[in-house]
Amino acid sequence: MDFVARVYVTPKKAILDPQGKAVASSLQALGYDGVDDVRLGRYIELQLSGVAGSKAAENRVDEMCRRLLANDVIEDYRFDIEEKLEEQRA
Amino acid sequence: MDFVARVYVTPKKAILDPQGKAVASSLQALGYDGVDDVRLGRYIELQLSGVAGSKAAENRVDEMCRRLLANDVIEDYRFDIEEKLEEQRA
Repeated sequence: MDFVARVYVTPKKAILDPQGKAVASSLQALGYDGVDDVRLGRYIELQLSGVAGSKAAENRVDEMCRRLLANDVIEDYRFDIEEKLEEQRA
Repeated sequence: MDFVARVYVTPKKAILDPQGKAVASSLQALGYDGVDDVRLGRYIELQLSGVAGSKAAENRVDEMCRRLLANDVIEDYRFDIEEKLEEQRA
């Protein structure tokens, strides 16, 4: 079975996010008021093939996150998994 | 009204994504077969306050994306907007 996994990695709440702060000040400089906070993270889209089922895909992506995609000490991650239908395979 | 906007920025399909390619080879080197493709993008979470309504928030975030958050020439963006409820406001 083929899956698409979408992984969202964000800095933990307690961790300073200078990139996010820079984006927030840039938005304010452009005249956008009311931007209280910006957090900047990574978005990773994985195309998986030959996985036994959605539970197996979930376990595999969680392991990938812990081993490579996210740094558990300073980052949080979450992900969703979607089965690819025939017509999306291209 | 207060909103949370989640913006996803990804390289356009026709654009090479060397970072994504590097992640894909690293995953293969760690023993994960069946990772056909990886695209690496940015995930931006914005906390907005004092916005008139959800339509206004949508327009504002779309404008922010075009002016600062994404590079329209090489990147695609999409976003979703959620109203913040009283208890989430901290």
